[in-house]
Amino acid sequence: MPTNDRQDDNSFDSFARDAVYRAIFTRRDVRSHFVDEPLDDAVLARLLSAAHHAPSVGYMQPWNFILVRDRERRHQVRDLFLAARTREAEVMEADKQELYRSLKLEGIVESALNLCVTCDRARSRASPLGRSHNPEMDLFSTVCAVQNFWLAARAEGVGVGWVSILDMAALKRLLAIPDHVVPIAYLCVGRVSTFAGRPDLETKGWGKRLPLSTLIMSESYAGAGEGGLKRLIDEASGD
Amino acid sequence: MPTNDRQDDNSFDSFARDAVYRAIFTRRDVRSHFVDEPLDDAVLARLLSAAHHAPSVGYMQPWNFILVRDRERRHQVRDLFLAARTREAEVMEADKQELYRSLKLEGIVESALNLCVTCDRARSRASPLGRSHNPEMDLFSTVCAVQNFWLAARAEGVGVGWVSILDMAALKRLLAIPDHVVPIAYLCVGRVSTFAGRPDLETKGWGKRLPLSTLIMSESYAGAGEGGLKRLIDEASGD
Repeated sequence: MPTNDRQDDNSFDSFARDAVYRAIFTRRDVRSHFVDEPLDDAVLARLLSAAHHAPSVGYMQPWNFILVRDRERRHQVRDLFLAARTREAEVMEADKQELYRSLKLEGIVESALNLCVTCDRARSRASPLGRSHNPEMDLFSTVCAVQNFWLAARAEGVGVGWVSILDMAALKRLLAIPDHVVPIAYLCVGRVSTFAGRPDLETKGWGKRLPLSTLIMSESYAGAGEGGLKRLIDEASGD
Repeated sequence: MPTNDRQDDNSFDSFARDAVYRAIFTRRDVRSHFVDEPLDDAVLARLLSAAHHAPSVGYMQPWNFILVRDRERRHQVRDLFLAARTREAEVMEADKQELYRSLKLEGIVESALNLCVTCDRARSRASPLGRSHNPEMDLFSTVCAVQNFWLAARAEGVGVGWVSILDMAALKRLLAIPDHVVPIAYLCVGRVSTFAGRPDLETKGWGKRLPLSTLIMSESYAGAGEGGLKRLIDEASGD
C-alpha cells in the first residue's frame, strides 16, 4: 500500500481536529464545580489508559496511579493542603495575600476521588536511554501522562484539579510511598456541573493570559524574527 | 440559564470524544518519517496556541518557544546529539549497547523545523502561588505545554520528536539561553509520511508496554484494591 494511503487511515478530518483543540482550549484546573456523583469505573479505565499512552523517555513508563477514595485519608490530605497554604501565604507579596487567601485552590474532599500520579525513578536503572544527560526526563514523562489524563477527562465531561500546595514529604508518608518514588501530581477528579469559560485565576484577577506572540523567539533566545508568524497569531486571537 | 444547559454547550459527543482519544493513542515520538516539506505558519500558529493553553502553576505561563530553522545551527545541535549519544551508549548494559546504537533517536536536520520549549524560572518570583513547596512545578507546567503541542500536532498530521539526548548546558550556549531559563524540550517538528502503528522502541525490541492494571494502586503505594477497575482494564485491552 502506498505511504499516502496509510497516512489517510490515520488522518483527522476538520471535525476531529477541532475536537482535539476544543479539549485543549476548554480544559480547566477545576476546584469549584465538582458534583456529588460517583465516577464510573469504565470512564476511569479509559482515562488511565490515556495516561498510560503518554510518551516516556526510553519507553520507561515510570508512572503509577494511586487511587484515593477513603474519606478519612482525603481529609488528612486536605489538612496538609491547609497547612501548606498558610505557609505559602506568608511568602506572597503583601498586596496579594488577601486575594490569595480568598482563592479556592482544591476540591480534595468534594470530588469523586483523588489520584496521585507517581514516578518510579528506578524503573530503567540498567539502561537509562535518554536519561544519562537529563535525569529529570522521567519526571517529565510522568507529567505528560498527567496531561493526557486531563485532556481525556475534559472530553469525558470529568473535571480535574492539580493540587500543588502540599508538603510532598508528608504526602509520601501518608500514602506510604517509598524513597525511590516521587509523587508528581495530586489530582482531584470527578463529574462537574460546568467547566468555567476562563481559568479561575484570570476571573479572580490573579493574572492574565500573556500575549502568545511575545513568547516566541527566533533562532536563539530573544531572537526577534518570525514576524509573519507573530502577526498571524496576533490576528487570530485574543491570546 | 440552568447549569445543565451550560454544561451541554461544552459537552463532547462520542465522535468528538473518540477524536481526543485517537490523538492520544496514535501520537508517536517521531524520528524516521519526516518529509521534505515546509510547515505552514497557520498550522504552526495553532500548535503554539495549543501549547500556550496548557495549565500552569499560579497561571505563571513560564514558557517561551524558540523556533530553530537555520540549517547550520541545526547541524550544530545534531553534533551535540551525536556526542551525547556516544557518551550515553557507554552507560548502557553491555547487551543493550548494540541495539541502542542502531536506534534512530532524532530527526533534527530532516524535520521542517526545530522548537526549543523553555521555562523562565523567574517569571512569578514575587508571588509563587503553588511553587513555594514544590518549586519544580513551573518545569512541569512547561511539560504540559509540550504535551498539548504534541497532541495538537498529531491531529494536524504533524510529527513531533523529543530529543533528550543532549548536553543541555551546551544547548543553552548555542541558543544564547540565559541562566534563569531552562530548556525543557528540544523538539523536531514537521509533516510526516506516516505515523507508526506502535512506538519505535517497541517495534525494535527495546521495551514493551507494561500492563496498565499492574500500575494501579489503591489508597496507598502498593495498596491492592480496585479489583473491579483492574479487571475492566485487563478485559478492554492488550494494554
